[in-house]
Amino acid sequence: MSEQFEHVALIGLGLIASSISHAMRRAGMTARITGTARSATTRGKARKLGICDQVFDTAADAVRGADLVILAVPVGAMAAVAKEIAPVLEQGAIVTDVGSVKRAVISAVKPALPEHVHFIPGHPLAGTEQSGPEAGFASLYDNRWCILTPEPDTDEGALTKLAAFWKALGANVDTMDADHHDLVLAVTSHAPHLIAYTMVGVADDLGRVTESEVVNYSAAGFRDFTRIAASDPTMWRDVFLNNKDATLEILGRFTEELFALQRAIRTGDGEHLHDYFTRTRAIRRGIIEAGQDTDAPNFGRDEEDDG
Amino acid sequence: MSEQFEHVALIGLGLIASSISHAMRRAGMTARITGTARSATTRGKARKLGICDQVFDTAADAVRGADLVILAVPVGAMAAVAKEIAPVLEQGAIVTDVGSVKRAVISAVKPALPEHVHFIPGHPLAGTEQSGPEAGFASLYDNRWCILTPEPDTDEGALTKLAAFWKALGANVDTMDADHHDLVLAVTSHAPHLIAYTMVGVADDLGRVTESEVVNYSAAGFRDFTRIAASDPTMWRDVFLNNKDATLEILGRFTEELFALQRAIRTGDGEHLHDYFTRTRAIRRGIIEAGQDTDAPNFGRDEEDDG
Repeated sequence: MSEQFEHVALIGLGLIASSISHAMRRAGMTARITGTARSATTRGKARKLGICDQVFDTAADAVRGADLVILAVPVGAMAAVAKEIAPVLEQGAIVTDVGSVKRAVISAVKPALPEHVHFIPGHPLAGTEQSGPEAGFASLYDNRWCILTPEPDTDEGALTKLAAFWKALGANVDTMDADHHDLVLAVTSHAPHLIAYTMVGVADDLGRVTESEVVNYSAAGFRDFTRIAASDPTMWRDVFLNNKDATLEILGRFTEELFALQRAIRTGDGEHLHDYFTRTRAIRRGIIEAGQDTDAPNFGRDEEDDG
Repeated sequence: MSEQFEHVALIGLGLIASSISHAMRRAGMTARITGTARSATTRGKARKLGICDQVFDTAADAVRGADLVILAVPVGAMAAVAKEIAPVLEQGAIVTDVGSVKRAVISAVKPALPEHVHFIPGHPLAGTEQSGPEAGFASLYDNRWCILTPEPDTDEGALTKLAAFWKALGANVDTMDADHHDLVLAVTSHAPHLIAYTMVGVADDLGRVTESEVVNYSAAGFRDFTRIAASDPTMWRDVFLNNKDATLEILGRFTEELFALQRAIRTGDGEHLHDYFTRTRAIRRGIIEAGQDTDAPNFGRDEEDDG
């Protein structure tokens, strides 16, 4: 297997795929980049932005001749795309994806693909609350993690080559079992998103507090929730529908703890509250030390505002 | 009543009080600034940093001669401080506070104060996840809101003078009823903080997901919660114990909505999820338009990291 990909096909041209393109070019990769998107508007934007060397109208046309195919569509659309591209995939091509859930993607994609390609599911843990081809940027993957979830029969050479590709885009690469991925992400991503969506929805729906009060007084904590609650609705609908069990398990644990803290408030148990709030400080220090967040107060956004 | 304060006393010398001092000096105010803190370590730091013209060992000494006294201690400590300073307060002095709950502060402070001072409760909606005198900075209040909750018998002149003081520090000023303040803040601050603390606690406590997994993969959403869950435990314990009813009411509404969304996940009701997630995007746009948050992706923190 050659060391570098010669032709990379991006199926779906949103934030994730366009950032891959920008990061490939930043890394000096010479691979031909083709792509497609379901919506003509998105294809038009991608053409104008020059995200790909060539944007095709269909996924089948986009993947023809590619030695790396990246499925970057919402999880609910993966099965249909896999079926469409299966007949034209090159012998020995690597097919990967960027979906936020892995077991459901494997079930949807693997049966559709021919034996002569390597399917290696993947998930780059990077993104912003913005979407579309114009939202991408070259540094999105820098020092973020990309998790690959190979199966026991995955070809080692193909896995190594795909991992090297992600590292060249700036990412760290880890591998784990698909089910474990889905549980870890339920904790670090899916449950937090659902909780943020819920809280923002509640605030929006209260008769006794006006929307302008919520907006003006959001700096006291609420605004931190609104960023992730502004994420793409289709993508997130699909995430929850496809990582149902792990998400519901974590939400169950969350509700249990929330009830315990509510009881502590009701009974005036200040010690329980203080102990709990002290414990949660340590985890943020760990995240900052691991380079996964800034230690600037308020995420540094106030300096941004001033500047 | 003269237009400017001549002597401002800061009781408590944490992030909020030290930022008041920095912002006063930035505004060119010539008032003498005195202060005190319960802990000798904090007093030592404040002396070293020059937060005050003079740091006293007791609150009674710090307020002597002051025409503005700002109580910037945790809500649970307000009653004791009010009792201590009551005998030495100047005739006509304005006493205010910066507590995150207002009805409980009024109940704790007002009965202790003499008739010859003006007590006007206040709450600047600004802060960071950091605490202590070294965490303060002059621009903390710029374009943030300060809510004052005067009583029907509050002196108009005193209210106008205090409002002008906060405006000179960079803040917008609003007035409302104390109970309404406590409900609004339960929505925009207290419930979000408790929810963030809960989620971070759950993640920290899961046997099947390691702490390093939570830390490394936090960029997928979780890290946004950890900032407010790193806030000062004593302050937040006091907030919840002193805004019990409103916080529990909002948490009740939150749990109701969360259960409805969990049911939609369980039954595969994608339309309900998509509709809900679409609605919550609008509120973030409102917050950005009102200048209460940055529109830079990921709060702009990734550029900070790069820079």
